Amino acid sequence: MSLGMTGPEEVSVDAITLFVLLLSACIIIGHLLEKSQWLTESISALLIGLCCGVVILLSTQGKSSHVLVFNEELFFIYLLPPIIFNAGFQMKKKHFFRNFSTIILFGAVGTLISFFIITLGSLQLFKKLDIGFLEIGDYLALGAILSATDSVCTLQVLNQEETPLLYSLVFGEGVVNDATSVVLFNAIQRFDLSHITSTIALQFIGNFLYLFFTSTVLGIGVGLLSAYIIRKLYFGRHSTDREVALMILMAYLSYMMAELFYLSGILTVFFCGIVMSHYTWHNVTECSRVTTKHTFATLSFVSQIFIFLYVGMDALDMEKWTVVSKSPGTSVGVSLILLALVLIGRAAFIFPLCFISNLTKKSQNDKIGFKQQVTIWWAGLMRGAVSVALAYNQFARSGHTQMLGNAIMITSTITIVLFTTVVGGLLTKSLVRFLLPLQKHSGSTMMSDFSSQKSLNLPLLIGQESEADIGGTNIPQVPSLRMLLTTPTNTVHHYWRKFDDAVMRPAFGGRGFVRYAPGSPPELVVQ
Amino acid sequence: MSLGMTGPEEVSVDAITLFVLLLSACIIIGHLLEKSQWLTESISALLIGLCCGVVILLSTQGKSSHVLVFNEELFFIYLLPPIIFNAGFQMKKKHFFRNFSTIILFGAVGTLISFFIITLGSLQLFKKLDIGFLEIGDYLALGAILSATDSVCTLQVLNQEETPLLYSLVFGEGVVNDATSVVLFNAIQRFDLSHITSTIALQFIGNFLYLFFTSTVLGIGVGLLSAYIIRKLYFGRHSTDREVALMILMAYLSYMMAELFYLSGILTVFFCGIVMSHYTWHNVTECSRVTTKHTFATLSFVSQIFIFLYVGMDALDMEKWTVVSKSPGTSVGVSLILLALVLIGRAAFIFPLCFISNLTKKSQNDKIGFKQQVTIWWAGLMRGAVSVALAYNQFARSGHTQMLGNAIMITSTITIVLFTTVVGGLLTKSLVRFLLPLQKHSGSTMMSDFSSQKSLNLPLLIGQESEADIGGTNIPQVPSLRMLLTTPTNTVHHYWRKFDDAVMRPAFGGRGFVRYAPGSPPELVVQ
Repeated sequence: MSLGMTGPEEVSVDAITLFVLLLSACIIIGHLLEKSQWLTESISALLIGLCCGVVILLSTQGKSSHVLVFNEELFFIYLLPPIIFNAGFQMKKKHFFRNFSTIILFGAVGTLISFFIITLGSLQLFKKLDIGFLEIGDYLALGAILSATDSVCTLQVLNQEETPLLYSLVFGEGVVNDATSVVLFNAIQRFDLSHITSTIALQFIGNFLYLFFTSTVLGIGVGLLSAYIIRKLYFGRHSTDREVALMILMAYLSYMMAELFYLSGILTVFFCGIVMSHYTWHNVTECSRVTTKHTFATLSFVSQIFIFLYVGMDALDMEKWTVVSKSPGTSVGVSLILLALVLIGRAAFIFPLCFISNLTKKSQNDKIGFKQQVTIWWAGLMRGAVSVALAYNQFARSGHTQMLGNAIMITSTITIVLFTTVVGGLLTKSLVRFLLPLQKHSGSTMMSDFSSQKSLNLPLLIGQESEADIGGTNIPQVPSLRMLLTTPTNTVHHYWRKFDDAVMRPAFGGRGFVRYAPGSPPELVVQ
Repeated sequence: MSLGMTGPEEVSVDAITLFVLLLSACIIIGHLLEKSQWLTESISALLIGLCCGVVILLSTQGKSSHVLVFNEELFFIYLLPPIIFNAGFQMKKKHFFRNFSTIILFGAVGTLISFFIITLGSLQLFKKLDIGFLEIGDYLALGAILSATDSVCTLQVLNQEETPLLYSLVFGEGVVNDATSVVLFNAIQRFDLSHITSTIALQFIGNFLYLFFTSTVLGIGVGLLSAYIIRKLYFGRHSTDREVALMILMAYLSYMMAELFYLSGILTVFFCGIVMSHYTWHNVTECSRVTTKHTFATLSFVSQIFIFLYVGMDALDMEKWTVVSKSPGTSVGVSLILLALVLIGRAAFIFPLCFISNLTKKSQNDKIGFKQQVTIWWAGLMRGAVSVALAYNQFARSGHTQMLGNAIMITSTITIVLFTTVVGGLLTKSLVRFLLPLQKHSGSTMMSDFSSQKSLNLPLLIGQESEADIGGTNIPQVPSLRMLLTTPTNTVHHYWRKFDDAVMRPAFGGRGFVRYAPGSPPELVVQ
């Protein structure tokens, strides 16, 4: 009504209008470019952000505008949770849990290896460059910042339908290494990591296990609570708006509680998404199912575009570049060194850990082939908004962007993010098609084409049961069935299914315990 | 991931977690209280907010916590738009446009009458009380603040299904008087209203007409643009997430653009909602229809609860009360005087304007009876979050809460808001049932019971056509049909229908031009 009266808020009205306008433009352009093999929505958002940054710079005569500066809080509190939650919600649980040990190996041990290589490498190589003073903590932070795979980028280039194994490995790694990053950052602030003793190493491992366990339990707990509440309270008389609101609020609650307790919010909200899709989603009305499914997907979609737009605009904020431009050679050198370290750091853990992982697998089908290893290495190279946010957090904390060392670290991070996002985004799809042509021609691409226009009454593609169900009613899903027949059923999975059917589902609902009849009248029969 | 590292944001994590937790609690409690005739979700949210405020106060030993202080920006930028948009989106257009002239009369002339009575009354009566210095502008602002009907409160107590005429009149008045308030506030800041000349009065009328016209045109324009884009671009190949995202973004865009151009955002987003439900909504896939309908309703629902929770918590922020507590008698006196002025101010325009409105109506059925007039008077008495936000804006602008006059104005506003919301919320439903028992027993309550559980495939209750459609397939809707037969079709409406069918629908879609078949396959045929 009367925002016009108030002074300081006027600026944010400007900024919000601009962002909403750009987001709409990105969606429309993304739609028009859908047929293009190269340009994805994320890259076009990045480019639109860059263009918009140029326009703002020109219109403000080269001065930086606050619109451009990356806001960590906005990113971590509002944009990231819906993306990770939706990934958990729409995750094919079978692939994720089959490769759980490998994912943990990548996310925990792999991130550590990468961290040490980047930290030690930069410590050695930066000595020769004149980049001003950096503390040992800065190098350690740099290692932590650049060793984390960006889950948001992964979602952009890997398709769950086309390459389910790759997707679950690389995306799962991105989720798990968030916990590693939290532990690393805490460790950097608490311990003197330049003298690593066995006690500190053990403490570190203990911290990781504690954090991983508590974050997971919190996510699962909130998810189960939502399932229980909706199952018990809405018994017989459903109210769509309340159900949808409660699901959204409780999903967000899990993330915020994790942040409040200094846990890994990403891990928590991811597991909350998995639990909600397995139990809660089956307890709500048909309307609520369609609504939540598409609302979560839409929120995630808009947040992703927003992030890339934001990273693109932020890249042109001038303050940091003016400091750096005094020594362009050093800046380019630092960026190249860091890029090389990222490449080497990732290679140094993907190939050895894949080898170890393959040793534990009996069936040839379960092993990760060399071409797949290369794709995993490549697809996880992208660094994104998480790196930018962390770089700002570390190097711009007390307004120290004016110092050469800090400014170079931020600009180099942004350079790496832009470079890996654009190159990775442009080439990954083609690389996947080139290296793994077999999977492309199997039934799954057909499947994804079908599922993109799937009917209202089709259940979500979640978990093994749903897949089998869809296979039965629609197209026989050849590769999935073949894998099911050739690989021996995992014992853990077998006992889990028994436990799920005997204890969990009767208490928390889920498929089979809330009768689901497509096209049924609005009054669904609840057991 | 790493919010724990950063200092200032920690507090907001606390606050967000608390609010999300309370919102979930309100939804669950609201559900449990659904059968209660007295307690509505809004009152329980208000009470929970008050209780929570007490707990926070006790735990911080009486110091105020920033969590409690009302944030205008949050309210006007994020909470209000979804509520008003959804009201427009789900509005029964027939009732709204049939009573359009009466609504404008109430919203524009009525608000002015109420404004003058409250301003002049307080100017006269406050002289006898010792309330510190207040400028003439403060009295004018007080009039503007307390003469505005709160649309959010109206939504809480009036049911569109049960009392469509009352709902459209009182809610429509609330939307239109937003434009009046913007004009009033601008006028207060620009002109010297203590010497009203005919020029200023003419300027005022001109401003109102300009603002009303531009705000409406902007809303309709953005709505039509969204319909056109979705119709043209998504031709034949639908993508649910993009459609939903675009609809949400463009709805929000209309509000933000109105704020940017100093127009009435509420009026704009309301008309945008009406246009989107009439055209855009029919151009999207079936999934998108279900999703947008429930997403808008859920967003609005959560925002409403949030607002009442917030008002309840804010009421216990201590700073203003400690200043006021030094002169409790004056404070109570001011509150009582203002409450009386609000009652008189509203009576002073409802009854005369209803009389004028009745003169223009030929049919006895169209006239507003005395009992209905009383209900309209009562239902619009509630003052809500808009008043609180405006009171803060006027009286706490430069940290002047310490001054007695300002503190009393804020606490009196809060007192009136709490009193009218609780009393209005508790009694309005019963009053409506007592004064207008006929409408209660007609088919419409049945209808609303049915529609609360309505099936996925049922179209929205929008506009005359949809209603007829529902009447045909479900229950014959007696009162609506009877009214249609007894009242002569409005000429304006007749020509509008012709224009709509010949020009608008072919260009922007809408029912009949995007073939709608319930339960049809996902590939909808688009003309």
